[in-house]
Amino acid sequence: MSVNDRILNAQLRGKIMSADEAAALIPSGVNVGMSGFTGAGYPKVVPAALAKRILDANLRGQRFKISVWTGASTAPELDGALAMVDGIEMRLPYQSDPTCRKRINAGEMEYIDIHLSHVAQFVWGGFLGKLDIAVVEVAGVTEDGLLIPSSSVGNNKTWLDQADKIILEVNAWQNPALEGMHDIYYGTALPPHRKPIPILKAADRIGIPYYRVDLDKVIAVVETNHPDRNTPFSPPDENSRRIAGHILEFLQHEVKKGRLPENLLPLQSGVGNVANAVMAGLRDGPFENLTAYTEVLQDGMLELIRCGKLTCASATSFSLSPDALTELNANLKDFKNKILLRPQEISNHPEVIRRLGVIAMNGLIEADIYGNVNSTHIMGTSIMNGIGGSGDFARNAFISIFMTPSSAKGGTISCIVPMASHVDHTEHDVQVIVTEQGLADLRGLSPKQRARVIIENCAHPNFKPALREYFERALRYSPGKHTPHLLDEAFTFLPNWMANKAAREAWRDDSLVQADAWRK
Amino acid sequence: MSVNDRILNAQLRGKIMSADEAAALIPSGVNVGMSGFTGAGYPKVVPAALAKRILDANLRGQRFKISVWTGASTAPELDGALAMVDGIEMRLPYQSDPTCRKRINAGEMEYIDIHLSHVAQFVWGGFLGKLDIAVVEVAGVTEDGLLIPSSSVGNNKTWLDQADKIILEVNAWQNPALEGMHDIYYGTALPPHRKPIPILKAADRIGIPYYRVDLDKVIAVVETNHPDRNTPFSPPDENSRRIAGHILEFLQHEVKKGRLPENLLPLQSGVGNVANAVMAGLRDGPFENLTAYTEVLQDGMLELIRCGKLTCASATSFSLSPDALTELNANLKDFKNKILLRPQEISNHPEVIRRLGVIAMNGLIEADIYGNVNSTHIMGTSIMNGIGGSGDFARNAFISIFMTPSSAKGGTISCIVPMASHVDHTEHDVQVIVTEQGLADLRGLSPKQRARVIIENCAHPNFKPALREYFERALRYSPGKHTPHLLDEAFTFLPNWMANKAAREAWRDDSLVQADAWRK
Repeated sequence: MSVNDRILNAQLRGKIMSADEAAALIPSGVNVGMSGFTGAGYPKVVPAALAKRILDANLRGQRFKISVWTGASTAPELDGALAMVDGIEMRLPYQSDPTCRKRINAGEMEYIDIHLSHVAQFVWGGFLGKLDIAVVEVAGVTEDGLLIPSSSVGNNKTWLDQADKIILEVNAWQNPALEGMHDIYYGTALPPHRKPIPILKAADRIGIPYYRVDLDKVIAVVETNHPDRNTPFSPPDENSRRIAGHILEFLQHEVKKGRLPENLLPLQSGVGNVANAVMAGLRDGPFENLTAYTEVLQDGMLELIRCGKLTCASATSFSLSPDALTELNANLKDFKNKILLRPQEISNHPEVIRRLGVIAMNGLIEADIYGNVNSTHIMGTSIMNGIGGSGDFARNAFISIFMTPSSAKGGTISCIVPMASHVDHTEHDVQVIVTEQGLADLRGLSPKQRARVIIENCAHPNFKPALREYFERALRYSPGKHTPHLLDEAFTFLPNWMANKAAREAWRDDSLVQADAWRK
Repeated sequence: MSVNDRILNAQLRGKIMSADEAAALIPSGVNVGMSGFTGAGYPKVVPAALAKRILDANLRGQRFKISVWTGASTAPELDGALAMVDGIEMRLPYQSDPTCRKRINAGEMEYIDIHLSHVAQFVWGGFLGKLDIAVVEVAGVTEDGLLIPSSSVGNNKTWLDQADKIILEVNAWQNPALEGMHDIYYGTALPPHRKPIPILKAADRIGIPYYRVDLDKVIAVVETNHPDRNTPFSPPDENSRRIAGHILEFLQHEVKKGRLPENLLPLQSGVGNVANAVMAGLRDGPFENLTAYTEVLQDGMLELIRCGKLTCASATSFSLSPDALTELNANLKDFKNKILLRPQEISNHPEVIRRLGVIAMNGLIEADIYGNVNSTHIMGTSIMNGIGGSGDFARNAFISIFMTPSSAKGGTISCIVPMASHVDHTEHDVQVIVTEQGLADLRGLSPKQRARVIIENCAHPNFKPALREYFERALRYSPGKHTPHLLDEAFTFLPNWMANKAAREAWRDDSLVQADAWRK
């Protein structure tokens, strides 16, 4: 199928131009809403053309910056390219690009870390200012001008509805069989006009499989034929397998106690190797007829669908390895009736998450002994990626699970700490913490009881003595004994982390290595 | 009307006994769900009789403790009496009793600080263990055994449904005209059987005005004639009036910008004098046809109803001064069609709060310069009251406002600090911070931008130089510049607070004074 076959609408065919021509329509100082969610469905050529334009302007001594709003993280062709030329004034709501991260942490780029379910509401409510331009990748355009979504949905519906002007990239690389898989809901509204979101089961379709668009707002259509940039996953390591094992055992225990149905409740799982290991564990586990109401579809979930254990998965994006993507594309017609991609305001909607009773499983950077979780900051000051959807799911889940290896950086840093250096999920929203060492079920426990369980079940043996010692001394000397702390040493107690300059530098080096790796 | 007129059901009339006899049916070691929400609708005599029993046991050298679950805070006759004899093993989800607080902070009583909307779900899900006994105050019993709720609903429906055994207090002091005012929803379920909560407007009635009860589970009925213990409010002070003024100005600005409808959106406001001052401001302000979807009805809201500005208020409890209560009781028939009391799982339901687009206004203990809010802990270690419903509302509100005087303890302590010593509401959930100094609109701002606005608009002039200096030095020396911090001095920078022992002691003295005040 050639590119032009994808653009069946005559009016839009008349607006086809090159990426450079389209990028020339984006002035400095504007807010641009781009498609893209975890390396899927982002525009492949216009951002890079814009980066070249920005570089040229910079070389002429002109300032040229835009604000970039997306679904979540994207790929080097978007975040990387624009950050490389220092072209981003403000970034939201989530990023994982090493160059962006470096600029943000150097204080050269502003970043707003926002719940993914909040973005559409904030934009519709006018809280973030005017959205000037949307740059959205689609898989095709129907004759009557409906847009076929590509491999992620994210905030695209909102960008297309809210932007003054629209640039479309039509990507011939995207599988044409994607048509019909999406569920784009047009029933949202601002209060006081909101109605219940009519999802009662993860598989419920409540919208249409296309984006509507005001064709007069489209100022450019760019043809592309570029693959999504998906990351290969390493096979689960020993720690990930152990974490998965503890979670599986916990879920079986909950079923036995009558606290979960035999086919569990809809699963949500964050991105990464631990999450994939949990899915691998479920593949080999006893549960049948599982469902997922989640943000991204990773390899592990695809495998669960393939083997018949997962009957349906609702998400807003794919996040697959190249191998899994090949499999998906080869068998998309079989997968299609079990997968829905929705706008992220629906995939992450608090109302639906609460109603379905989602079992939320998310990663973390550090958890403290009282169950507060830091998902975003290194040493309380440097952003890693952002909170993403973890808050949307954790806050309204039926059971909110956080998982992490017990130590990082070759065992020099404990991921269980006395006091989290930044809090993204409070003690009120964290019900279970799991490491390869074990699982802490925090439901119905007071802070002091939680501390004992977290230290004994989750901390790495190398750090247990120091954590126990902190807790016991805090019990004795803390001014209040509800949440005992010694505030003057809460952050300093792990010498390898806070006091040891070498460890700090090691982390910085890591950032640089990541940045370098990408540049190559 | 005599007490017996209140108990029209023959089976329950047969179970009438004294408070001492009823208390004798409560053994040590059980979980007891009691009615009560902010000094309204709590059982008046059985807890005190139980406290005497516990004291007797203690004097005989026997351990006697129960776990106490409620709606929220209660009154000296319940929390105070049981805490005084050290009879509470575990307390949840909220308390504000000085003796409880002292025991919790001395490490003598366990306390679980839980979102009020989570409690029913956790109990139904079996997460907190078995509920053995319910002790619930009602205003009366109908002939066919339905219970007429009294001045608060809280978790009563859940207690009555879930407890093995039930003790009822029928309080003849409660206004019989309360009958018909409540809206008890029997449509909740555990997932996967949940349906949308069918509330589209704050005033929507979706349930019945009675509690259903399995009469065979009722082991005792106790007649009482005791007033709720409501606290007089002081008239708004200058600081509260200024805070209210800033909020009113902000709301008018939002209406002018088209970001809020002319009659605003349903209001939620926490308990206290600042909240009452905001209501007083609304009484004199330009808004008409207001609605409230909130947790407690305070004097200010009653006044707004009386003067016609507030067309409807949905809550789970009254929290009125004696004067306002007299007014309510005298005119209950007029107020009744504008007031609904619901179970707290509905008044605080994330789904409904999000759908209605509630404007949430809650107090705080300290906010940091990046917008993280501490609602619960003094110096990160001692509980004050608990998070209550503030997280339910803030997390899913359309606009989440937090308000506080800029300083406490006679101006010696800044309520704006570099880093919150405990986080209950993260930077992701806080959109506006207001003090008497001014208002910081944090929407669409990065952490560093937020810091500048919070320091300049909200901090007390006496603390501004030190906060500015911390921020500027953090900008320079922080390892990461996204959320600049100097972790080794984040808590120590305010000498009057952290380093000055006298200030610490002053706070402790205050606790003691509060405790003493109650004992008198």
